[in-house]
Amino acid sequence: MPKLLKFNEPIPTSSKGKRASHVYRIAAEIMCQKGYAGTSMNDIAEAAGLTKAGIYHYIRGKEELLFDIMTYAMDNLDQRVIAPAQEIADAEQRLRKIVEGHTTSLLEGVGAITIVLEETPALTAAHRRLIKGRKRGYFEFIRQTLEQLESEGKLRSVNPTIAAFSLLGMILWISRWYRREGKLSADQVLADYLEIAINGVLNTDKNSSKR
Amino acid sequence: MPKLLKFNEPIPTSSKGKRASHVYRIAAEIMCQKGYAGTSMNDIAEAAGLTKAGIYHYIRGKEELLFDIMTYAMDNLDQRVIAPAQEIADAEQRLRKIVEGHTTSLLEGVGAITIVLEETPALTAAHRRLIKGRKRGYFEFIRQTLEQLESEGKLRSVNPTIAAFSLLGMILWISRWYRREGKLSADQVLADYLEIAINGVLNTDKNSSKR
Repeated sequence: MPKLLKFNEPIPTSSKGKRASHVYRIAAEIMCQKGYAGTSMNDIAEAAGLTKAGIYHYIRGKEELLFDIMTYAMDNLDQRVIAPAQEIADAEQRLRKIVEGHTTSLLEGVGAITIVLEETPALTAAHRRLIKGRKRGYFEFIRQTLEQLESEGKLRSVNPTIAAFSLLGMILWISRWYRREGKLSADQVLADYLEIAINGVLNTDKNSSKR
Repeated sequence: MPKLLKFNEPIPTSSKGKRASHVYRIAAEIMCQKGYAGTSMNDIAEAAGLTKAGIYHYIRGKEELLFDIMTYAMDNLDQRVIAPAQEIADAEQRLRKIVEGHTTSLLEGVGAITIVLEETPALTAAHRRLIKGRKRGYFEFIRQTLEQLESEGKLRSVNPTIAAFSLLGMILWISRWYRREGKLSADQVLADYLEIAINGVLNTDKNSSKR
């Protein structure tokens, strides 16, 4: 297994934790609409149905909230994608698990939270370092999986770094276009994404995910 | 050839046009750093080395500037990607041209301008309709090319809409990660992106872009 930064903080499951994650979702959606700089704590309190005093029960301030949302997103990624994939020794199966887990998580989750992950410039330097480190850890996990596939002769003749970025791009973009109430089912998107991703980077047609 | 909205406005080449495009690039970079809502006309004037009076020679206001940047980006896309690809009757060659043209344009261009294209919520309703219509026109062009490939039996067993989004996602993501001063050359990224994109969506291994 490739070495990797570990992120083991649990996702909050207490009732305060659940209410906080509800606030994160609402806050992320407003930040996507208005931009981070254009969103006030009042906007968030109003949308969450909390008084201005009530919101400060959950959140110390706007930057802290942004950091909390990103931490929540990275905790989810860790628990739903990275940890299960780390259990898989076979690189091809691990890659499938990464694509499947991340795609499913975006199809089922709140797109706004993923989009807000791009707002790292608004973080304090210390928070930015933390979030960037976690993102880089995930990227390295994908890249090292592709390097293992390369050493096994299974990767197409492409650079593993470029391949990792291309996979991440196609997956993360889901948060910009997929609408659960639309015509395309999550199952169909997942099946097609697996087909395109695996055949895009692996080098034999035996790799079809549709067997 | 598939039907498609046409966007034939020329990219400005007058000296005022050139100076304006310089202001667009700078403004887009500041908007990416500070967010649209967090960027003032003063910030832009300062970075562009213009007085506040000077900047109003080029720009009527901030929303107008955002619209102008997006129009500039879509004009570039039209002239560098859509128009040349429309000349190609063969769907596979057309798809290659789209991936090649758009990828090259992002590798050579200003990433910030592409990122700012996501800021449509900040536009007036009329401007938003225009920009969204142009984006949709481009998306339809890709989708119809994939539908033609499907009818020719060349598309993998995937939905052309999903395949079009996956290609756009991997290409647009370049503006988030590629750094011209970094280790990866534009030529290498282009070659690998073509390999991954074409093999991801087309169904025979004869499709390798590396012949």
